[in-house]
Amino acid sequence: MSSSLGQFIKLTLFGESHGESVGCVIDGLPPGLTIDFTHVDTRLNQRRPGNHGLTSQRTETDQYHISSGLYQGKTTGTPLMVSFPNADRRSADYDQIKRVYRPGHADYTGQVKYKGANDPRGGGHFSARLTAPIVFAGAIAEQLLNERNIHIAGHILSIGKAKSQSLSEFSGYDETLEALDKAPCNLLHGHAEKLLAEVEEAKQNKDSVGAVVEAAVFGLPVGLGAPFFDTVESRLSYALFAIPAVKGVSFGDGFDYSKKRGSEVVDAFVLDHQGNVKTNANHNGGVNGGITNGMPLLFKCAFKPTASITGKMETLDFESGEMTTLEIEGRHDPCVALRAVPVVKSIAALVILDMMLESHLIE
Amino acid sequence: MSSSLGQFIKLTLFGESHGESVGCVIDGLPPGLTIDFTHVDTRLNQRRPGNHGLTSQRTETDQYHISSGLYQGKTTGTPLMVSFPNADRRSADYDQIKRVYRPGHADYTGQVKYKGANDPRGGGHFSARLTAPIVFAGAIAEQLLNERNIHIAGHILSIGKAKSQSLSEFSGYDETLEALDKAPCNLLHGHAEKLLAEVEEAKQNKDSVGAVVEAAVFGLPVGLGAPFFDTVESRLSYALFAIPAVKGVSFGDGFDYSKKRGSEVVDAFVLDHQGNVKTNANHNGGVNGGITNGMPLLFKCAFKPTASITGKMETLDFESGEMTTLEIEGRHDPCVALRAVPVVKSIAALVILDMMLESHLIE
Amino acid sequence: MSSSLGQFIKLTLFGESHGESVGCVIDGLPPGLTIDFTHVDTRLNQRRPGNHGLTSQRTETDQYHISSGLYQGKTTGTPLMVSFPNADRRSADYDQIKRVYRPGHADYTGQVKYKGANDPRGGGHFSARLTAPIVFAGAIAEQLLNERNIHIAGHILSIGKAKSQSLSEFSGYDETLEALDKAPCNLLHGHAEKLLAEVEEAKQNKDSVGAVVEAAVFGLPVGLGAPFFDTVESRLSYALFAIPAVKGVSFGDGFDYSKKRGSEVVDAFVLDHQGNVKTNANHNGGVNGGITNGMPLLFKCAFKPTASITGKMETLDFESGEMTTLEIEGRHDPCVALRAVPVVKSIAALVILDMMLESHLIE
Amino acid sequence: MSSSLGQFIKLTLFGESHGESVGCVIDGLPPGLTIDFTHVDTRLNQRRPGNHGLTSQRTETDQYHISSGLYQGKTTGTPLMVSFPNADRRSADYDQIKRVYRPGHADYTGQVKYKGANDPRGGGHFSARLTAPIVFAGAIAEQLLNERNIHIAGHILSIGKAKSQSLSEFSGYDETLEALDKAPCNLLHGHAEKLLAEVEEAKQNKDSVGAVVEAAVFGLPVGLGAPFFDTVESRLSYALFAIPAVKGVSFGDGFDYSKKRGSEVVDAFVLDHQGNVKTNANHNGGVNGGITNGMPLLFKCAFKPTASITGKMETLDFESGEMTTLEIEGRHDPCVALRAVPVVKSIAALVILDMMLESHLIE
Repeated sequence: MSSSLGQFIKLTLFGESHGESVGCVIDGLPPGLTIDFTHVDTRLNQRRPGNHGLTSQRTETDQYHISSGLYQGKTTGTPLMVSFPNADRRSADYDQIKRVYRPGHADYTGQVKYKGANDPRGGGHFSARLTAPIVFAGAIAEQLLNERNIHIAGHILSIGKAKSQSLSEFSGYDETLEALDKAPCNLLHGHAEKLLAEVEEAKQNKDSVGAVVEAAVFGLPVGLGAPFFDTVESRLSYALFAIPAVKGVSFGDGFDYSKKRGSEVVDAFVLDHQGNVKTNANHNGGVNGGITNGMPLLFKCAFKPTASITGKMETLDFESGEMTTLEIEGRHDPCVALRAVPVVKSIAALVILDMMLESHLIE
Repeated sequence: MSSSLGQFIKLTLFGESHGESVGCVIDGLPPGLTIDFTHVDTRLNQRRPGNHGLTSQRTETDQYHISSGLYQGKTTGTPLMVSFPNADRRSADYDQIKRVYRPGHADYTGQVKYKGANDPRGGGHFSARLTAPIVFAGAIAEQLLNERNIHIAGHILSIGKAKSQSLSEFSGYDETLEALDKAPCNLLHGHAEKLLAEVEEAKQNKDSVGAVVEAAVFGLPVGLGAPFFDTVESRLSYALFAIPAVKGVSFGDGFDYSKKRGSEVVDAFVLDHQGNVKTNANHNGGVNGGITNGMPLLFKCAFKPTASITGKMETLDFESGEMTTLEIEGRHDPCVALRAVPVVKSIAALVILDMMLESHLIE
Repeated sequence: MSSSLGQFIKLTLFGESHGESVGCVIDGLPPGLTIDFTHVDTRLNQRRPGNHGLTSQRTETDQYHISSGLYQGKTTGTPLMVSFPNADRRSADYDQIKRVYRPGHADYTGQVKYKGANDPRGGGHFSARLTAPIVFAGAIAEQLLNERNIHIAGHILSIGKAKSQSLSEFSGYDETLEALDKAPCNLLHGHAEKLLAEVEEAKQNKDSVGAVVEAAVFGLPVGLGAPFFDTVESRLSYALFAIPAVKGVSFGDGFDYSKKRGSEVVDAFVLDHQGNVKTNANHNGGVNGGITNGMPLLFKCAFKPTASITGKMETLDFESGEMTTLEIEGRHDPCVALRAVPVVKSIAALVILDMMLESHLIE
Repeated sequence: MSSSLGQFIKLTLFGESHGESVGCVIDGLPPGLTIDFTHVDTRLNQRRPGNHGLTSQRTETDQYHISSGLYQGKTTGTPLMVSFPNADRRSADYDQIKRVYRPGHADYTGQVKYKGANDPRGGGHFSARLTAPIVFAGAIAEQLLNERNIHIAGHILSIGKAKSQSLSEFSGYDETLEALDKAPCNLLHGHAEKLLAEVEEAKQNKDSVGAVVEAAVFGLPVGLGAPFFDTVESRLSYALFAIPAVKGVSFGDGFDYSKKRGSEVVDAFVLDHQGNVKTNANHNGGVNGGITNGMPLLFKCAFKPTASITGKMETLDFESGEMTTLEIEGRHDPCVALRAVPVVKSIAALVILDMMLESHLIE
């Protein structure tokens, strides 16, 4: 049980997909901060269903309401509570769930864990709707990092079999990455078409498709993280695996690393033009021994295809004990990754801010 | 900073590779337990350098000494302290480190984080030597799980480009997996030769090679874990990424999942012969919505090639600011995965036991 | 920084006295629970200002609204969010605070800690108003304990120099204590008059007066708590000292204990009529070595007199640097203890439930 | 269960009174620190049994051994492990414990909690012997505070009915308090005789006597601590109640506060000669709203009389179910407070250092 994330900037989530609201309490925000709500809204819009023709058509405007922690327009330093009322609640779509648990969803495991008492509508507390408050909090964390020249780039590296370019090719946070930050679905210029074609095809077939989201954090100081057990990878992966549909997390070369010879993947130390210590390659993704080394922090998240495909599936009727055909009628994303980049960035911002606060690198 | 892992069974590590000793304090062990030291020794031997012709020839016998927490041969329920004196300490091998940090190691990041004060010999507190107490604790956790018919199988799925068979093909903990548990380097019967050939070739070339370790946990109850933020994947990955050289962790189909259509990867619910709920496939690796679903828990860890290759590397001399040639003289593993399976199993056992204690599934 | 209390039943507070609302998120509630809202309302009414002629006349009805964690009238097992809108908000009373910090309050320390950004109105997040959500959560915890025959009695042991009878004289939760639970201001029958006379006199003089609240928990199992560092006393005192105005916490004979000879205060073990192990006295207040011993758990909390007396005080004008006369115009309690018993009980219920969940004594 | 104290400087205890050793792991020490072992030894000697004619005659030299976390004479920043071998182990004294649990001790509660498996000899893990590693760690924390002009004074305020002078009368850490730091049993000059007379009398009668230890911390910055739930009082009391025999903790006027009128105990703000904000009295003991206000932090701990009196006690024979006469033959302290001041100071130093690290007031 832990509805809270973080030690120094602590996020506590609540809410259900088709209940009254979702939201969070954020503790540990610096006092006196003027929140950049334009930035918050940008990130929320990137996450919002209906933000693109290929995403779920649930019409949530993601309007939010702050009940505490702000005074005269600034953060107080005490807990900030924000709630997102659920506008588009359609319980009817989910009635069948009570006897036919959706494959790949938490309907069954949730019912067992919570002894049949959890809210099943739209996944209840398991819903991706809970990522709205995560993005709210993450956007504030990102603002604090940006003010310290730390920038997080994120995009969709691949969808199905279509691949984009890796962020490992970028040595700094440049104009291309600034443009990427605003691009629809956070797709790198020149790669959007082929990636979206995979989604389009899946949608046509009432199917869904998986994807890999990649992120790069630029401007991190050397020395964040720790060996056993608070490595940068440990803390980031802990938080990233809470994102619904994430089934893999890797750093630097990740799983490709495992196919290589050591001599092929040496990150030799060099001095750059300013006399700063760098490495001449970045197979390690900016982390050595669990600690940031000053190179861009690179990581990838594997997203499984949405389990709710609109096509038919054979599965168990728990009441009768017979097999039955399930055809889900809801409004689902053929590819969750189209809305996932801001979520990944938010999680990264929260974890990095937490580590910086721990290391006394932010006051 | 966290030298501790776990909430209910808590492991606190200490020690340096070439200091006096490494060890740990284990709190939360059930009182009255007769520790199966034969099992502990089996696991320690599988981890030990020199356990195979292809592993590091550092001659540590891994003898340990318990100073507290045992009374009349049984656990007391209060903290158990165990230390492993370092027998084979050779500081001389590492003198060069002070001016030429080894690429891919924590020499540089450790020096920055600890302001030049950390013990640099053999990686100090960052050393894989610290996995000895982890394995000690993990073996006890595994004993407690085994007594409840939960079994953890682990093996090397691939080394470099050579591949073994996946544990996803096993539906239960059978004789083949029992044999695997005792097999040299935990290699599946019939696959050892091609995998070891990769290591042999790397060793011949004074090189190293990466690998993927795969594990499967059989017999878990439905309902372990939680949504936001204590998912099974979150807690396992947090702990697994503390293992030196791990750069990727995935569950079920993992990164391959991201290439698939939803219709290809449906884990439909079915009843098995005993009338238990199962799924007809296991793409999700036994976890839905962060909670175990009763199917085998499947995960993979990507290990990078050992950064300490014995061949030559061009890298920075931090004192002169010039590039220099580093040739590491120590006794290193051409493939750390040959000793990593018991470590992965131990981490899994500790995390699973912790979740079971939290869920009141073990008294 | 910690707006959260508890590990297994976790309470996260938010809100300010004269902001929009106060409230909390409660995580870890058992799923399927039908909350006894009559009991919740009873406890809230006992805490409410205006509940007695001698308490603050702020007119808060303490109406609350639950936004998540309830489904079809039962707890879901996922986080429950409850908010208490602030009805009677009068910022004007507190305008002077900005230049003349009230002695004994958190105005000054809050401004320093939060760099001048915290909400100063009515104490902001430091306000005793935050005890409303604590009582809400505590009443549910108490319900769960009551269902397991654990009962918490609480009363005002002394006000100023007037003394009541000690709960140490009760060996079980009997009819007198049941009556006490419903008595106005939780005063023991036959002792109310002299205690209230002290408050009346203080009120007449525009003054305030301190008090001691005493509690006894009946029906606890043997074995709750732990040595270093999670003793029963440690965990209870940690939580009790968060109650505004508490300046002392003691167990059993407490500070009187320190004046005694060992031979005077022996809690000898005996068998009771049912053959259960008891002690023939209870100087230790039900705790030996940090662990419950089956006797009633006895503790006291010293409350200081309300710092906001309505009389005049000489103190510093922070703007001019000169001394000034402060006369507080708000609606304050001449004795906070008149509303404190339900808060003390709630904190005790939350801590004890948390320890029982940890010890697997409640499923 | 928690054998660990602290978040930023974390102490993990292990060991039993008559087992092989006691000790601790300290994580979070700043790297590069030269530990002042003279200071450590001073504190250990003040805690040591046999340090005074009136303390237990167990002959422990309290020699310790550091196994990790030191390199070239300085702290590494990674975990420091220190063990104290038990030299004077006499199991025979405690054989009777197995059927006749000592009143007031943890023999009975420990046996229930640990299901009969804990080490009963000399209290096992419950023993005051565990305060040796606490004092070791606390002395290092105190060194770090002293270097920042924060000083902790501590003494015995009362023994039985004999009283000393309160530290609330000291406005700064002056020569008298420096002398107190070195005085036998930390007794204020001019008060030792009457206090020790109480102990002497108790000893003559084979009895024991309770005491109050008082401490004052000078030089703290304004702003340490937090409202709900990490108040200074919460964190200090949590840790202080882990000290064996402590049954009460209070701040400032503590329980006397509860007898007063508000007008009698106003801590009005004033400016001192240097223009710093102070209060003209310190009834609140340096804490407002859970946060330090710059005045000396004042607190008291009530110690019960040693439960092991050497006189005879009537208590239960658990085997026969009959009452029996217990006469304890061990070597016990007639008044534990004679050795408790360094323990109280150590706990305070650890907690304060932890709060300062959290608040980024120490790098």
